[in-house]
Amino acid sequence: MSGAAPRRTREELAAWLRLIATPGLGRASARKLLSAFGSPEAVLGCTVADRRAVAGAALAEQLATPPEGFDDLLRRTEAWLADGDEPHAIVTLGDPGYPPLLLQTADPPLLLHLAGRAELATAPSIAIVGSRNPTPQGREHALAFGRELSNAGWTIVSGLALGVDGAAHEGALAGAGSTVAVVGTGLDQIYPRRHAGLQHRIAQQGLVVSEYLLGAPPLRENFPVRNRLIAGLSRGTLVVEAALQSGSLITARLAAEAGREVFALPGSLHSPQARGCHALIRQGAVLVETAQDIFSELAFVAPTPAEPPPPAAAAEDPVVQALGFDPVGLDELVLRTGLPAAELNARLLDLELSGRVARLPGQLFQRLGRA
Amino acid sequence: MSGAAPRRTREELAAWLRLIATPGLGRASARKLLSAFGSPEAVLGCTVADRRAVAGAALAEQLATPPEGFDDLLRRTEAWLADGDEPHAIVTLGDPGYPPLLLQTADPPLLLHLAGRAELATAPSIAIVGSRNPTPQGREHALAFGRELSNAGWTIVSGLALGVDGAAHEGALAGAGSTVAVVGTGLDQIYPRRHAGLQHRIAQQGLVVSEYLLGAPPLRENFPVRNRLIAGLSRGTLVVEAALQSGSLITARLAAEAGREVFALPGSLHSPQARGCHALIRQGAVLVETAQDIFSELAFVAPTPAEPPPPAAAAEDPVVQALGFDPVGLDELVLRTGLPAAELNARLLDLELSGRVARLPGQLFQRLGRA
Repeated sequence: MSGAAPRRTREELAAWLRLIATPGLGRASARKLLSAFGSPEAVLGCTVADRRAVAGAALAEQLATPPEGFDDLLRRTEAWLADGDEPHAIVTLGDPGYPPLLLQTADPPLLLHLAGRAELATAPSIAIVGSRNPTPQGREHALAFGRELSNAGWTIVSGLALGVDGAAHEGALAGAGSTVAVVGTGLDQIYPRRHAGLQHRIAQQGLVVSEYLLGAPPLRENFPVRNRLIAGLSRGTLVVEAALQSGSLITARLAAEAGREVFALPGSLHSPQARGCHALIRQGAVLVETAQDIFSELAFVAPTPAEPPPPAAAAEDPVVQALGFDPVGLDELVLRTGLPAAELNARLLDLELSGRVARLPGQLFQRLGRA
Repeated sequence: MSGAAPRRTREELAAWLRLIATPGLGRASARKLLSAFGSPEAVLGCTVADRRAVAGAALAEQLATPPEGFDDLLRRTEAWLADGDEPHAIVTLGDPGYPPLLLQTADPPLLLHLAGRAELATAPSIAIVGSRNPTPQGREHALAFGRELSNAGWTIVSGLALGVDGAAHEGALAGAGSTVAVVGTGLDQIYPRRHAGLQHRIAQQGLVVSEYLLGAPPLRENFPVRNRLIAGLSRGTLVVEAALQSGSLITARLAAEAGREVFALPGSLHSPQARGCHALIRQGAVLVETAQDIFSELAFVAPTPAEPPPPAAAAEDPVVQALGFDPVGLDELVLRTGLPAAELNARLLDLELSGRVARLPGQLFQRLGRA
């Protein structure tokens, strides 16, 4: 997976990690800095005064020196990446292996730690989420839908939590396809402990994903944040069982906000675990009885056994060529292509709509696929 | 209930019954004749040649003489209307007691036989329908929703069938409100036999309705036809449990076609009796968990304890005055009001939208309310 995990220098890796490890630097500010300076190294390499204009005095100063313990984090991350037992990788906003669907969301992470089959991060995926305390039938539904969707070629994304999440992963692994677990801790952590074996199997046969740095402990507030990746990686999200005001409803809301399909299983009027699903259906989620109901809705983006070759024209398009595989600003593209900004914008929109270019936050554009 | 069951002569009654009893004369043709000639007596009193122009040679001839056994039917109907034990009435398209919501449907019956409290035919109503073979939970839901909606002032309309229908009627009678049973036989018949006691109680405490002539036996083909009255009398239809391809789905479709709300209870993925409800929800029916969900949707037409007085302007409106309480054609109204047809049409539309006038098939208009 050289495409997904490109060679990068120690300095490049360190610069990306610094953008996450620096206290007080949120994702929005980090993306603003990236957009202004073009790369993490440029963000760190410029003067404090330059940064101040973009991110304010406090952050500009913070970024001048590595945070406490950063050298240790960098060493541990390098060792983790070099692990011989399990394929480990980090993909950043600038890498072609970064999941294009995630790029299209409101708040894509700067980078993802990947343990396992990195290519699954860009596979056609459906999220299956639900209660940590499902009914026996809810657990069975998660298992069955996971297996059926997996057999149809879909990758099942979930959150490795107890209950529905775990059953969905198990179902996916039992099917012909695979599964992606998005966790809310560093990838050297195990949480929940009862899913240690499952996490290990997914890292071997599927993919475990985290936006958190190595060593990041399970923090309550990180799990809802993590849910945006579950929704963002997936064409649609199926909620199997959920109480009202549960994390699964957050995932469903984020999926809807990202323009993805939301699916929900109905249940008894007397089951508190069906209330969340019923609320979703009333808000417009598709009521699902069988996997076929999901296939019907997603027919136009269904996975195919073999990936079709990219259109021959892709390589020749001068805008695509000018884009390269790193995020590029519009002004830079005007210089590279010699096209007027208005025409360039129109062409970029066409390329975006045909799925060959992604629009990143901060007027950055990135080529998709390996053409 | 002199308003609902106005005095009419033996000849008037006979003429209405003839329009139904004449073999081969369907409701559409009968309405066409009524529209052309103004009243059933005029339809029968004109020449065969006059009728031929409207309804064809065969029907024109058929209507020249009473059908076989008609005198007996007329005598039995008069005796039934004079019954001392139970209030019996017949309301026709021309009567103010004819349910206005039914008038607004595509295929209103020419007349209704009513046994019981005739005023319930025009009360704010919700239909509850469902399987003849419900699960125990389905039966319990029909009972509970019937009772809760009844307590909120709604009249519950159903079809007196075994299963969900019967439970809905029982629930309604147990609540503060009442119930209307629309049957597919003549009102001197009992069907199904097991509901003889229930039918009798409804005729005492509620209302039993039929569009069929006395003596009409239970015919398989009449029950789906009867369903349009259940939907047509009601502001909304709740389907409690229904298999795919069941009569309840016909009722729901007719309700939707008449612009009424359709409500459905969700259930287990594994219950065949939930499939019909799930299909309805996928087609846009409102998923209902509690009676409150229905109240929310129908808030703007909810029944009130006391009927508000009609707006003072209603009596003064010259178009409303010209309408009277019988169906009137547009040409006749032009003569009565002296208004140009275009202006009259505009005023009639306003009156229709404000619920004071009903538009009948065949360009007939009728005043609503007793102002």
